[in-house]
Amino acid sequence: MNAAADQTIPADLAAIMNRLGQHAAAAASVLALATTGQKNDALTRIAGSLRARRVELLAANARDLEAARAKGLSGAMLDRLALDENRIEAMARGVDEIAELPDPIGATIAQWTRPNGLDIARVRVPLGVIGIIYESRPNVTCDAGSLCLKSGNAAILRGGSESVHSSRAIHACLVEGIVAAGLPAASIQLVPTTDRAAVGYLLSSMTDYVDVIVPRGGKSLVARVQAEARVPVIGHLEGICHVYVDRDADLAMARAIVTNAKLRRTGVCGSAETLLVDAACAATHLAPIVKDLLDAGCEVRGDGAVQAVDARVKAAAEQDWHTEYLDAIISARVVDGVDAAVAHIGQYGSAHTESIITGNAATAQRFLDRVDSAIVLHNASTQFADGGEFGMGAEIGISTDRFHARGPVGVEQLTSYKYVVRGSGQTRP
Amino acid sequence: MNAAADQTIPADLAAIMNRLGQHAAAAASVLALATTGQKNDALTRIAGSLRARRVELLAANARDLEAARAKGLSGAMLDRLALDENRIEAMARGVDEIAELPDPIGATIAQWTRPNGLDIARVRVPLGVIGIIYESRPNVTCDAGSLCLKSGNAAILRGGSESVHSSRAIHACLVEGIVAAGLPAASIQLVPTTDRAAVGYLLSSMTDYVDVIVPRGGKSLVARVQAEARVPVIGHLEGICHVYVDRDADLAMARAIVTNAKLRRTGVCGSAETLLVDAACAATHLAPIVKDLLDAGCEVRGDGAVQAVDARVKAAAEQDWHTEYLDAIISARVVDGVDAAVAHIGQYGSAHTESIITGNAATAQRFLDRVDSAIVLHNASTQFADGGEFGMGAEIGISTDRFHARGPVGVEQLTSYKYVVRGSGQTRP
Repeated sequence: MNAAADQTIPADLAAIMNRLGQHAAAAASVLALATTGQKNDALTRIAGSLRARRVELLAANARDLEAARAKGLSGAMLDRLALDENRIEAMARGVDEIAELPDPIGATIAQWTRPNGLDIARVRVPLGVIGIIYESRPNVTCDAGSLCLKSGNAAILRGGSESVHSSRAIHACLVEGIVAAGLPAASIQLVPTTDRAAVGYLLSSMTDYVDVIVPRGGKSLVARVQAEARVPVIGHLEGICHVYVDRDADLAMARAIVTNAKLRRTGVCGSAETLLVDAACAATHLAPIVKDLLDAGCEVRGDGAVQAVDARVKAAAEQDWHTEYLDAIISARVVDGVDAAVAHIGQYGSAHTESIITGNAATAQRFLDRVDSAIVLHNASTQFADGGEFGMGAEIGISTDRFHARGPVGVEQLTSYKYVVRGSGQTRP
Repeated sequence: MNAAADQTIPADLAAIMNRLGQHAAAAASVLALATTGQKNDALTRIAGSLRARRVELLAANARDLEAARAKGLSGAMLDRLALDENRIEAMARGVDEIAELPDPIGATIAQWTRPNGLDIARVRVPLGVIGIIYESRPNVTCDAGSLCLKSGNAAILRGGSESVHSSRAIHACLVEGIVAAGLPAASIQLVPTTDRAAVGYLLSSMTDYVDVIVPRGGKSLVARVQAEARVPVIGHLEGICHVYVDRDADLAMARAIVTNAKLRRTGVCGSAETLLVDAACAATHLAPIVKDLLDAGCEVRGDGAVQAVDARVKAAAEQDWHTEYLDAIISARVVDGVDAAVAHIGQYGSAHTESIITGNAATAQRFLDRVDSAIVLHNASTQFADGGEFGMGAEIGISTDRFHARGPVGVEQLTSYKYVVRGSGQTRP
């Protein structure tokens, strides 16, 4: 009897959650030893199950959407919640892609021999049990579960209550694939209750079972997790990303990159929120870049110099430099060269992703060395802040932490390592 | 005015601690950009200062020892606290060795080019500000400070109150070397108060300044840190290390390794605490191994089979399998083959270091794969669990965590990374 299969709200939350933890820990020790073939077989079967059960998935999703509309959820939230045939196919394709990634587990990261003949290897192993707490995006159930499976970790998933029926239907596909491949059903479990107390219990009272928590969602969710968690957290805070246009920037390149960095998609964490333009090229570069943004429908909030170039520019307030708009709005100011740009980013940035546009290699290097962000780019759009674009396959998010994993978190970042030492009878003098 | 220079107990603890944090953060941004030459110059000068000021160090240590004797501290604690000319020279030599290590900062860990021409490099950077909380071992002030310096991190050190004068004298040598090399005095700071509330403040109220906490000391210290810390912790829990003597073990090798693993030094975390002997070779291997231990003055606490081989063997209680003796005592039992050994280690071990003695490669691989500890050895003593023995230079401890760093924590483990992306105008489609 798996507690996760019981979809009623439990009377005794602690008992249910501990059972979930015990099952996850048991599954993790099997998954740690699973072969690449077994894990990939499970993933391929999951993709097949998602495709085969698309009618059920759409029906479950319709129940969620109906309830969400009745609760008066906004259009953007309904859009995030909604599944359709294309989105189901995209999920399935994502799982197929994870199957194609190299297996990180068992790989030798480093190996050397000591003068006494000891052979020392650092070998990748799973983290163990990963708890993932996310908002009402049904696809995260699939993405996060599949990434954990590939990296040999057991997953305990807790999605937003608005997506509960969709998540359960997707989870059934995951379990179907896992079991068909001969792996434990508890490899990926869904917290069986929408009781909010379950999140607190997962964060603070399951240290015996849970090795890492990954919050995936907005600022308030991540903040809650970081405040309450008694196990390590891979945090994904906001992306207040900057583009700095240097005096030696090619104007055409700067125009193309700024527009792309802000407007390609405004709701992603790698979207630029602040434009910094070097005072030394403001006379030539500022107006065309700002007019491009305005003409494309972007609101620009600028300092005096930026306001001077176009009447449509609004005045920026101090708060604007601290704001992740996630919308077609950008803050903009003129700064006195690369060091002032670095200082602005240090003061207001979120250490996520920043780009410099310049033809000057020394200035670029100065920026790349001094900006202390997970991702620093030269002559490229901040919208490349994405595990897929980095060639890492899927990602569970972009870490803004410095500890364990920084930047895109893919299968390799969901691992630990151990030292395997081979001797021939060595004792220590 | 540096708060750390003020050695009186402060009236306003929060203000003092925040000032320490601000200074550390400022120093960290300078250290992150310091050259290898500058850091090594500082380290070499620190070693010189320790040697030049040894009379002052011994005088300061004498004050600590006098107070400790008056408080009735035990012989083992007094021994850990005591400095002499040899120990000072060993500290200085340790700093020289850290100077000789490769600089981890700025190293490219991985680099690849994407189909769109983006060049992506994962480059090592410091963690930032590291808080180190330790007991009354004066040398940790020197070791931990020097490791942080080499890895480009600012350090906030909080040592045990019994070693306060020794730590301050050593800290003065560190600052002398750092300043002479042109680096910020606040690169290594000592918490200027022995007020115990300072530890709590450092753990929970300095998240704006402190990136990582490293507790170095006994079980209760580490447990307190893990319970209270609001920043990531690199934990060093106990080492309940096992040696498993398999049916295919060479007896002479097994005898040499077991005696070394237990008795070379009993107070280190890599010392063996439990001996597991395969039932299939107990008739030949158990008695000589147990008699070696007994004859060397080791107390043996065994199950029935072990007690049967020698009248000096005491009976093991359930608690013995859970105990890190850190003394000349070992628990011993007969198990039914490698899988039973793995199961015993899984149930009672602390995931630190375990060794299998066997001539059978398949059995060895089974053990190395299935034992989930930071260090697993084949045909070698558990006493090799040490950063120096691994060729990593000095270590700040052995991590029993799975997150970020596992096993010996040297300069490389005190780092993070960032992604440096070089383009030629790429925008994301």
